Amino acid sequence: MDLQSTSHVVHLTKNLASTYLILHNIRSAENVGSLFRTADAFGVTKIYLTGFTPSPLDRFKRPVSKIAKTALGAELVVPWEFGQVHVCIERLKAEGVRVVALEQDARAVELMAYSRNGDSALILGNEVDGIDASTLEKADDVVHIPMHGAKESLNVAVAGGIALYALTER
Amino acid sequence: MDLQSTSHVVHLTKNLASTYLILHNIRSAENVGSLFRTADAFGVTKIYLTGFTPSPLDRFKRPVSKIAKTALGAELVVPWEFGQVHVCIERLKAEGVRVVALEQDARAVELMAYSRNGDSALILGNEVDGIDASTLEKADDVVHIPMHGAKESLNVAVAGGIALYALTER
Repeated sequence: MDLQSTSHVVHLTKNLASTYLILHNIRSAENVGSLFRTADAFGVTKIYLTGFTPSPLDRFKRPVSKIAKTALGAELVVPWEFGQVHVCIERLKAEGVRVVALEQDARAVELMAYSRNGDSALILGNEVDGIDASTLEKADDVVHIPMHGAKESLNVAVAGGIALYALTER
Repeated sequence: MDLQSTSHVVHLTKNLASTYLILHNIRSAENVGSLFRTADAFGVTKIYLTGFTPSPLDRFKRPVSKIAKTALGAELVVPWEFGQVHVCIERLKAEGVRVVALEQDARAVELMAYSRNGDSALILGNEVDGIDASTLEKADDVVHIPMHGAKESLNVAVAGGIALYALTER
């Protein structure tokens, strides 16, 4: 049994539902690496890299050092694949996975009040522009993290960590 | 009314208790900057920088660029001061603040099950070694974030974000 299988089994004992992560148009390789590390910690089944999100391997299949630096090996154990975001969302929905976007939006419910129901895929969007309207529209649910500060913004790797924690730890 | 006052007022409408953050022996300036940004988002009253944690200003009072890069201005609005960690903990306790350490430890309770009671100070420790035993012993409570992956670790800025979210959003 390899490491990934072990991780999966441990996860299943905690929560019978699977969690997927869709990283759409994330600019920073360090943020992608950090999200791989967090995804591993919370037992994410697979990460979909869509839009211009950088991947752990460049087009010559060489490891990308900025991702490896913050993923700390998680990029080698969490399964991932490239995809076109709308195709990816439709495929997950067809498989019975509920697609949840993290975004400040009129539709959004507070993360703390959100109850997942079965398999879920969390979409995180661009550091500056968030998730584009046509992608957001395809999500089944939208959640947001209430903020109270002067700046009203969180780093995407921190916000994604909070959302994965809230979705998996209850 | 300056920005900081506004932030404080907005926070008080959500949660009458104050939240403090103690960053002890954090090595990475990027992590410190990220934690300033998150602290602002969750209405933290003050950050205490203890041990060798870098500060937003160097000893010549010049801004530290690696912190500013990830704090995105939050280092200018969230109050902070240097302190000796044990002195800082004792002072907060004397003021009626409950001191909570985030650490994997035999005493630790799951973050999700932890109910804060009044003013709280969250201690975060070193990226590799965590919080040293003598400091951990001084904490009133210890909380941990359950993990299920192959690597069993979270970046300190992500873990701190999750803990601040859980402590302030209920």
